[in-house]
Amino acid sequence: MDRTGYRLAEIVARFGGRVDGDASTVVDQVATLDSARSKQIAFLANSKYRKQLETTRASAVIVAGADAAATAIPRIVCANPYSYFARLSAFLNPLPAFTAGIHPGAVIGAGAQISPTAHIAEQVSIGEGAVIGAGCVIMSGCSIGAHTTIGEGTRLYPRVVVYHDCVLGNNVIAHSGAVIGSDGFGMAWENGCWLKIPQIGRAIIGNDVEIGANTTIDRGALDDTVIEDDVKLDNQIQIAHNVRIGAHTAIAGCVGIAGSTTIGCYCRIGGSAGILGHLSIADGVEISSFTLISKSIREKGTYSGIYPFSEKDGWLKNASHLRHLDDMATRIRNLEKELEALKRRD
Amino acid sequence: MDRTGYRLAEIVARFGGRVDGDASTVVDQVATLDSARSKQIAFLANSKYRKQLETTRASAVIVAGADAAATAIPRIVCANPYSYFARLSAFLNPLPAFTAGIHPGAVIGAGAQISPTAHIAEQVSIGEGAVIGAGCVIMSGCSIGAHTTIGEGTRLYPRVVVYHDCVLGNNVIAHSGAVIGSDGFGMAWENGCWLKIPQIGRAIIGNDVEIGANTTIDRGALDDTVIEDDVKLDNQIQIAHNVRIGAHTAIAGCVGIAGSTTIGCYCRIGGSAGILGHLSIADGVEISSFTLISKSIREKGTYSGIYPFSEKDGWLKNASHLRHLDDMATRIRNLEKELEALKRRD
Amino acid sequence: MDRTGYRLAEIVARFGGRVDGDASTVVDQVATLDSARSKQIAFLANSKYRKQLETTRASAVIVAGADAAATAIPRIVCANPYSYFARLSAFLNPLPAFTAGIHPGAVIGAGAQISPTAHIAEQVSIGEGAVIGAGCVIMSGCSIGAHTTIGEGTRLYPRVVVYHDCVLGNNVIAHSGAVIGSDGFGMAWENGCWLKIPQIGRAIIGNDVEIGANTTIDRGALDDTVIEDDVKLDNQIQIAHNVRIGAHTAIAGCVGIAGSTTIGCYCRIGGSAGILGHLSIADGVEISSFTLISKSIREKGTYSGIYPFSEKDGWLKNASHLRHLDDMATRIRNLEKELEALKRRD
Repeated sequence: MDRTGYRLAEIVARFGGRVDGDASTVVDQVATLDSARSKQIAFLANSKYRKQLETTRASAVIVAGADAAATAIPRIVCANPYSYFARLSAFLNPLPAFTAGIHPGAVIGAGAQISPTAHIAEQVSIGEGAVIGAGCVIMSGCSIGAHTTIGEGTRLYPRVVVYHDCVLGNNVIAHSGAVIGSDGFGMAWENGCWLKIPQIGRAIIGNDVEIGANTTIDRGALDDTVIEDDVKLDNQIQIAHNVRIGAHTAIAGCVGIAGSTTIGCYCRIGGSAGILGHLSIADGVEISSFTLISKSIREKGTYSGIYPFSEKDGWLKNASHLRHLDDMATRIRNLEKELEALKRRD
Repeated sequence: MDRTGYRLAEIVARFGGRVDGDASTVVDQVATLDSARSKQIAFLANSKYRKQLETTRASAVIVAGADAAATAIPRIVCANPYSYFARLSAFLNPLPAFTAGIHPGAVIGAGAQISPTAHIAEQVSIGEGAVIGAGCVIMSGCSIGAHTTIGEGTRLYPRVVVYHDCVLGNNVIAHSGAVIGSDGFGMAWENGCWLKIPQIGRAIIGNDVEIGANTTIDRGALDDTVIEDDVKLDNQIQIAHNVRIGAHTAIAGCVGIAGSTTIGCYCRIGGSAGILGHLSIADGVEISSFTLISKSIREKGTYSGIYPFSEKDGWLKNASHLRHLDDMATRIRNLEKELEALKRRD
Repeated sequence: MDRTGYRLAEIVARFGGRVDGDASTVVDQVATLDSARSKQIAFLANSKYRKQLETTRASAVIVAGADAAATAIPRIVCANPYSYFARLSAFLNPLPAFTAGIHPGAVIGAGAQISPTAHIAEQVSIGEGAVIGAGCVIMSGCSIGAHTTIGEGTRLYPRVVVYHDCVLGNNVIAHSGAVIGSDGFGMAWENGCWLKIPQIGRAIIGNDVEIGANTTIDRGALDDTVIEDDVKLDNQIQIAHNVRIGAHTAIAGCVGIAGSTTIGCYCRIGGSAGILGHLSIADGVEISSFTLISKSIREKGTYSGIYPFSEKDGWLKNASHLRHLDDMATRIRNLEKELEALKRRD
């Protein structure tokens, strides 16, 4: 067989599901329905795009049972086409191999323990007593602070900084520019000046956490900042000191979370949302983009606080009343009273 | 002539316009009307600052025809004083020269093609098969991924990261901490855990694009993320996977753009605005700062969605009614009906 | 005495206050009331947490006079327990020592003046003519531009970038990924294209300023961007060109400040707030999180502009009326008129 691709029969043997249509169809890459070319396999994860099955040039598609009859294209039928596609894509697009060993241009502190199977690239700095686990890939220009411990299979893209005394779990991914364990924003006001409060807690990152580019996670002031297993953080998120984020929670880009807030498991937080400090967010909460959460949320559910946009003239005309809502409410109450009096008088 | 400066006559010979007043006046630097000193040339780009002509100590000014008679200071009269000033400033403040060649402390991957006229500074890492064009300046600590291609005259400030397989055009400028081509935020939910979706698209950056400090541009999930020619991005902008931004669009700081959104040409987006995913924004759209765009915009125009600030007590009093607007609307409708009934009864 | 800790008597001899209870009690670390263990000293900075005094396992506590009788635990009584704690924590948690000298892997430009007591780590790049003062700590991978001057005792964490010709004062702290002196977002529109305006001002950072991780401070376009003494900036803040921030002002994470705005002294700005350009904010102003300041503030006070969040269904129902507020106001006015007419008629 041509090893530049795989037959559908081989794919279902590996990943499950069944083939409808020609099981000897060969594919070598995943693609969207819209842009797929010959020898590519697309997926239909949402029935509302079913019409694209009619026009796609994909050689094969991945569909749910409900969509199996919607096309004659050779197809893999499975329970969850989107995760099936994810697994197949990972198989067809393996990560580049990084050779084990320490580049001579890396600088390694005294007492650091680096697994012989780890890859330490050029321009990396690893502090005293740090521990780097098996199979880790630490790319060019990363800086790992003293006594920080990193588990197995963790991958730091170029220019990630982890401060001293932090802990990263297994199979963590951190993208370029991420900063983990920087000082929290803590100071006391004394005699007209700020006095810095040493930030002596740690940042603890669980297993299977992904951290986006230029995301920042501060270390704790006294106790630790904790990101639990399988948390997914997009780019440019700011997580302040002593925040705790529960397992499997996903947070989109540009979110800011203030100090000492606790977020539950299985939460989903939209882009550019904000959460004030010292709050508690229940498990399973969804927060809309651009929403500020200003008090704790005790119940699972979806929460929003977005000012709707409109054409600027309309916005100006309407928004000018926001400073008079209290007056409007009073006038409505007065109208109701007067009307009631009038009706009684009649 | 004193080569520490230029006579107005020389300047108009080079850049056009005419001189009113003494054309032998020498200037050696640009400045604002407010802070200009002797031998400096200021500009009046907006007639509302015309009063500053009376007090400026500039030796010369750049003005539009309409303002030519507003001062006796030697002046260059031209159609667009602001762009004239930009050109003159670039002439008076040339970029420092960077010597061609590769610093011995840089690490260059196998098969990389680096133009002999490019400058590759210390602590730079260039991946296998990357291509760096003529006249590029790659400053200290930049990391260029494998098989990434960079055109001519592009300038990367210290600590820029470009991931593998990306494309940057000619005369791109990227400021420190910018990250181009990081993984998009893509994962599938399966059995209570997240499954990473390989991000196999690229980030494609056109010619003459400027990218601000700590701005992040994710690579595409399957297809590419595309930033067209002459797009200008300020600092700390987040551009998610598969976004497309049309030519000549300018975006201010801290804006977040979610995945698969397409933005037209000639748009202007204010600071800290947000745009949700899978939307389409027409050419020539202006979006106010701090506005969330939650649906597609089909018409050129200016769009806003800002909650007006006020003194906190007033804000509290008014904002408390926002959770009762629907009730207020119902009560107004009821009042209208009852009043109508009352009037009919009379 | 056991040098792994200090008696309360020794502590008050050094930092003031008085001991109530056993002054020979030994402590070796600070902690929160909640998590303190034996030999740790906690603090009560806010009487509302007084109940925690009953359950804490701390060996000693720091309290204000008003709370001195609220516990029998050995205690230090002082005027400002929070700043007392800050000073004591700094004493118990001294910064790690960095040996003076220049790492052989650093690259130092011609004519740079580096104090013999400064620490210059590996992978640092220092430009021509730069000046690094006594006792500075420049950690791995920092890049300092040509002719930039840094005062005494300043500490740059790994991968900080300072562009050319900037000035940092004494005892500045900048965290990883901070970028100081990048080009402001300045361009002129000419014939359908953008023309870059050279950014020839500087970024001037005063003494005792702290700059958070991935915060960006642009250099001035013509005049300088200025951050005055004792300003405290959290992570991921964006400060545009020609901004001036007054002494002792503190700004929380993710704030964006547009160009040429002046902020007074002693201000406090909440997370993710925004301030438009060319505004002036008085001394002592407090701005709530997530608030956009769209005009100058002349009076000290607290200012807010947050859309309150709610459960999504309720939000949808209420927010839909925001585009009809002007209509609602008109209808209320009409109702008032008609009711008045009706009353007059009776």
